[in-house]
Amino acid sequence: MAAPGDRAGGFGEFALIERLRRKLAASGGERPDVVVGNGDDAAVVDAGGGKCWVLTCDVQVQGVHFPAAGMSGISVGQKALSVNASDVAAMGAAPLYALVSLGVRADTPVAFLEDVYEGVNARAGRWNVAVLGGNVTRTEGPLFIDIFMVGEVAREELLLRGGARAGDQILVTGFIGDAAAGLYLAGHPEVRLRNEAHTALTFALLRPIARVEAGRAIASLRRATSMIDVSDGLAGDLGHLCRASGVGAVIWEHELPVSPSALELASVIRKHRPEEWALYGGEDYQLLLTAPVEAVPALQKAAREAGGIPLTLIGEAVPAAQGIRLKRGEDLLPLEGSTWDHLRGEGE
Amino acid sequence: MAAPGDRAGGFGEFALIERLRRKLAASGGERPDVVVGNGDDAAVVDAGGGKCWVLTCDVQVQGVHFPAAGMSGISVGQKALSVNASDVAAMGAAPLYALVSLGVRADTPVAFLEDVYEGVNARAGRWNVAVLGGNVTRTEGPLFIDIFMVGEVAREELLLRGGARAGDQILVTGFIGDAAAGLYLAGHPEVRLRNEAHTALTFALLRPIARVEAGRAIASLRRATSMIDVSDGLAGDLGHLCRASGVGAVIWEHELPVSPSALELASVIRKHRPEEWALYGGEDYQLLLTAPVEAVPALQKAAREAGGIPLTLIGEAVPAAQGIRLKRGEDLLPLEGSTWDHLRGEGE
Repeated sequence: MAAPGDRAGGFGEFALIERLRRKLAASGGERPDVVVGNGDDAAVVDAGGGKCWVLTCDVQVQGVHFPAAGMSGISVGQKALSVNASDVAAMGAAPLYALVSLGVRADTPVAFLEDVYEGVNARAGRWNVAVLGGNVTRTEGPLFIDIFMVGEVAREELLLRGGARAGDQILVTGFIGDAAAGLYLAGHPEVRLRNEAHTALTFALLRPIARVEAGRAIASLRRATSMIDVSDGLAGDLGHLCRASGVGAVIWEHELPVSPSALELASVIRKHRPEEWALYGGEDYQLLLTAPVEAVPALQKAAREAGGIPLTLIGEAVPAAQGIRLKRGEDLLPLEGSTWDHLRGEGE
Repeated sequence: MAAPGDRAGGFGEFALIERLRRKLAASGGERPDVVVGNGDDAAVVDAGGGKCWVLTCDVQVQGVHFPAAGMSGISVGQKALSVNASDVAAMGAAPLYALVSLGVRADTPVAFLEDVYEGVNARAGRWNVAVLGGNVTRTEGPLFIDIFMVGEVAREELLLRGGARAGDQILVTGFIGDAAAGLYLAGHPEVRLRNEAHTALTFALLRPIARVEAGRAIASLRRATSMIDVSDGLAGDLGHLCRASGVGAVIWEHELPVSPSALELASVIRKHRPEEWALYGGEDYQLLLTAPVEAVPALQKAAREAGGIPLTLIGEAVPAAQGIRLKRGEDLLPLEGSTWDHLRGEGE
């Protein structure tokens, strides 16, 4: 029970979710058709015939998840669809269906709303997701877009957070830290970068592309042992994966796949180590996974063939007692678990 | 395309949804696994093995769908779950799974949020719906709760809006107009009713119970030709059903199932005809359906056996050219289509 004076803002997002989750656990938790209830990237239910359906939803609120001004409706729609596709991809599943709930202010330009749907459709078309409607409602508050997504995966290809074993290698798709670098750039318009780098970092922030094809390629090999998407920052999401699996981890800082664009920004501003963006930035929507060492080459080949996505070896799972550490040069440092927390407003 | 100056508030909710729906239609509309895309109470997809899954979502916003003060968290949660279960029930389906998205202000009492989940769980438990998580996010605006629900129905039991034929009888479950009467009562605390009537009308507004059991009983008989839930007011929802079916209708005003509690309120305030609440009130979450005349007794028996729900014969479908009319005494009046419109704020 909450104390009478407790307010939502006094809890971090994860602590509040944890509290509320206990409330939810009362309902339906023991049904045999529920494969995974709370606590992974998406819920999983048995759809019969050896198939599972994964179910997820994620809200984007103006002023919290995207800026109150300066982000096009198309970007808002693309991002909202991608964020959900990323959760589906993290289970190894293919996204199938989406519903869109939109909360709009009376003074919202209709053209902006049409652009939001345009953006949703653009990403949906990319992955052949059928957008099956949803609803539009009025709000006095900031605009919000909530997308519900259903995905499908064969039961034996389903990838959860909890399957990593000590000795497994830790891999991540694509570049990490670009969204955080893009956020820095958005807040510092005086910084000059090459156009190409500017565009890459801005698009990483505003129009992330979920790793749907790579996720399916990885899952269908059936060699990975666990997977999660990187939305709260590598450190935070690795923490979720390690806790669910009952393992520790060592991350090799010098192996983190930082993009040339982020490196360029870091070298221009001479203030941030780009590895900080990668570890703590959040919103990358890449996939973080574990696999036995002998499976790594096949997984890397599969991801490369699924749209040319690099799959970088960045560390190793270790026994839980060793904790989660960062190897920097010869040093082994504790990896702080700092994460993007929307309720407290940290990290923004 | 919207004109540059168009604002969302300038369109009614239905007109805006219609505009945005055209945007959505571009995506996935021709996929063979999509049985019903936009435009019914819920979307329907083929789940294999003769089964369909129905997918729906509905947001409740504080200050729009429920009052900013004076409604308990438990009622908010119960209503949010019921509103979605009602859409599932309107397809003849059984609700199976729900996800809950919650947008909370930093100053929202945590105890209130726990009560919201308590209310969600209470209704979910009633219908054996597994609540599989969801997400909590911060908002600067009013609290909102968006529920995504998946239901299941055999393909041949699926009931859509579009199957009514001229000559079919029109039936409705339970009482209609109680929620509107409850809204009147909430706005007029000086009105004195018997406790029982006060409670009945207040609960109809704050804690509606979706007609899940009756919906399944009706669908499993396979005799009804169309069904929709009454959320926008009988007149409005009948209009949706008639348009989708290509029929007109005559509603017999004296047959409308107005509750003794609504009659009592109307007799005390001597201002409203209770039939107005029934026709235009909205938020009843009863089921409106059509069936051939010879199927009516069996349908009424099935609904009665499914929790004692009365199924009242209130009119008849007629050829479309005759329009939608209300029979009052010997007069046939055009039935105005006025509906609850959340975007324009009418009806509140």
